[in-house]
Amino acid sequence: MNHRHDTVRAIEWRDDKLYLLDQRLLPHRQHYCSFETAPAVADAIRGMVVRGAPAIGVTAAYGAVLAARAAFAADPAAWRQSMESDLQRLEAARPTAVNLHWALQRMRRVMEHLEGGPESRLLREAIHIHEEDIAANRRMGEFGAALIEGPCGVLTHCNTGSLATGGFGTALGVIRTAYATGRVREVYADETRPWLQGARLTAWELIQDGIPVTLLVDGAAAWLMVQRKIDWVIVGADRIAANGDTANKIGTYSTAVAARRHGVKFMVVAPISTIDPETLEGGAIPIEQRPQQEVLELGGELVAAAGSEAWNPSFDVTPAELIDAIVTEKGVVLRPDRKKIAALLNS
Amino acid sequence: MNHRHDTVRAIEWRDDKLYLLDQRLLPHRQHYCSFETAPAVADAIRGMVVRGAPAIGVTAAYGAVLAARAAFAADPAAWRQSMESDLQRLEAARPTAVNLHWALQRMRRVMEHLEGGPESRLLREAIHIHEEDIAANRRMGEFGAALIEGPCGVLTHCNTGSLATGGFGTALGVIRTAYATGRVREVYADETRPWLQGARLTAWELIQDGIPVTLLVDGAAAWLMVQRKIDWVIVGADRIAANGDTANKIGTYSTAVAARRHGVKFMVVAPISTIDPETLEGGAIPIEQRPQQEVLELGGELVAAAGSEAWNPSFDVTPAELIDAIVTEKGVVLRPDRKKIAALLNS
Repeated sequence: MNHRHDTVRAIEWRDDKLYLLDQRLLPHRQHYCSFETAPAVADAIRGMVVRGAPAIGVTAAYGAVLAARAAFAADPAAWRQSMESDLQRLEAARPTAVNLHWALQRMRRVMEHLEGGPESRLLREAIHIHEEDIAANRRMGEFGAALIEGPCGVLTHCNTGSLATGGFGTALGVIRTAYATGRVREVYADETRPWLQGARLTAWELIQDGIPVTLLVDGAAAWLMVQRKIDWVIVGADRIAANGDTANKIGTYSTAVAARRHGVKFMVVAPISTIDPETLEGGAIPIEQRPQQEVLELGGELVAAAGSEAWNPSFDVTPAELIDAIVTEKGVVLRPDRKKIAALLNS
Repeated sequence: MNHRHDTVRAIEWRDDKLYLLDQRLLPHRQHYCSFETAPAVADAIRGMVVRGAPAIGVTAAYGAVLAARAAFAADPAAWRQSMESDLQRLEAARPTAVNLHWALQRMRRVMEHLEGGPESRLLREAIHIHEEDIAANRRMGEFGAALIEGPCGVLTHCNTGSLATGGFGTALGVIRTAYATGRVREVYADETRPWLQGARLTAWELIQDGIPVTLLVDGAAAWLMVQRKIDWVIVGADRIAANGDTANKIGTYSTAVAARRHGVKFMVVAPISTIDPETLEGGAIPIEQRPQQEVLELGGELVAAAGSEAWNPSFDVTPAELIDAIVTEKGVVLRPDRKKIAALLNS
């Protein structure tokens, strides 16, 4: 049933190369770029050819395969040391999503026990990470959809679908499953400035899947709630702290504040790998500041007044107290706090 | 002192014509369009050549002069009746801002007592309306600035400056005066989707005046408050109901909700003509729905996924309970309610 509602893959490994759907060109051009070196993959992550916390984790894992290939070819005796700079470059590509760190830690653990050429074993691990992410998304879809009493309208922010993950999606996976089971009637999507992931990516995915979607400017979300158009806000996450505080795309916090005022429920959907027990609370999450040009320009042309400056944090933090449910592939935490998150991680 | 901080005029009457600075082309082109007929003026208001509640009121008054000229030329005996359709067309150009209705009511009152050719007397009234608006803005600037204990950072939404009014501005007039007197240290401006009035117009006005301004995407305003960057949100209004509920550019309500959560104060600055005692509360304010294309396209090109739909209300309503001060040229109302608003109107 769900298979109808999931038609895109942003990350593919074939012919010994990594292919990434260039998300900067969507929705008007569907072009895959191929990558054969880890530094090029790191640049693609930083440059947002690929984006979305789970997707950049999967991408970094494949990047590590390319790093190992180059290192082993250059020096079969010392490949671990010589690929270290590539791993660090991948990990530093973007600071907020902890999935990047998590995926590379998994690759490092496999590296420790390897003998002989590392590429095939590391590739197997990267493919595992990728496939596990899709499977986790399908489980989250079921868990999250079960929370929704429908049919109702939902609001989502940014893009958390097949493009942002290994496939199927986190928040959008829940929406896909909930739509297929009649719990979601219609989807509202914030356009999500400055990158317009909602208008360019989320709408594109939902239209392909035949799910009714209506875009709105981010500032209209609170007014949408006044109109009683939605019962749930459903979003993804780039990092969840040990107490449940959640970093996600800038603008998420604003919708959470409005949702609480209007009795609209707020759901965060993310794989366990997005929870970082070493980050104790939201204030400790590093928030990436991106170039001013992303706000000041549109399509490479200055739209703001010449001489303008911009403040462009790429994420904000929603405190746990505003979150009604965190949905992971291991289960759901209602009204999250430190104890419940720890119990989930240890379950 | 204030004169340094006010360098633009969006509306000019000269050579028997109305000139409007085409705000759709700002900030990159400064082009004035000339108008000699009322229907063309109505179209310019609807098409957002000129925007901002006080500015469209002033513009409509000049439009009535052009209507009277044409009507008197066509039929010196029955000019009142024959200009009626033009007046109705001007008044219907945009539904939310009550200033349009207010300005045309003033023109109608003058029309009642006229003998002979109406143009010169009506022009005198339109110029009065225009000049009174600028004077009112300067008084509001003083009243509003006096509320601010500075130096502090402030956030504004949309454009409420010289471009949105007869001159000087409402919320931006307060900011100009407060900056000149050291009460405001820096200004943050929401870019204000979908028309980007903040990025295109507010930043342009403030840069010309040498006032430090930093743009942000609308969804980042709540996160800005978490960073403790601002003490006040200062906005204009398109219509204030009898109980203090305030319609303003979409996105305003969202910032008001966040401001209350963070102890940031919220100021509405608008001339008395924006208060509509006949609209009892915010739910009765007509909210203009504008074309979907404003959200889906950028610079005339589709940016959203093909087939997308958009919900595009041009305004939202901030309830009086979230407003700390309404500043008018007749005085300030703190924590507005029906009684205090009535007292101000009757003072």
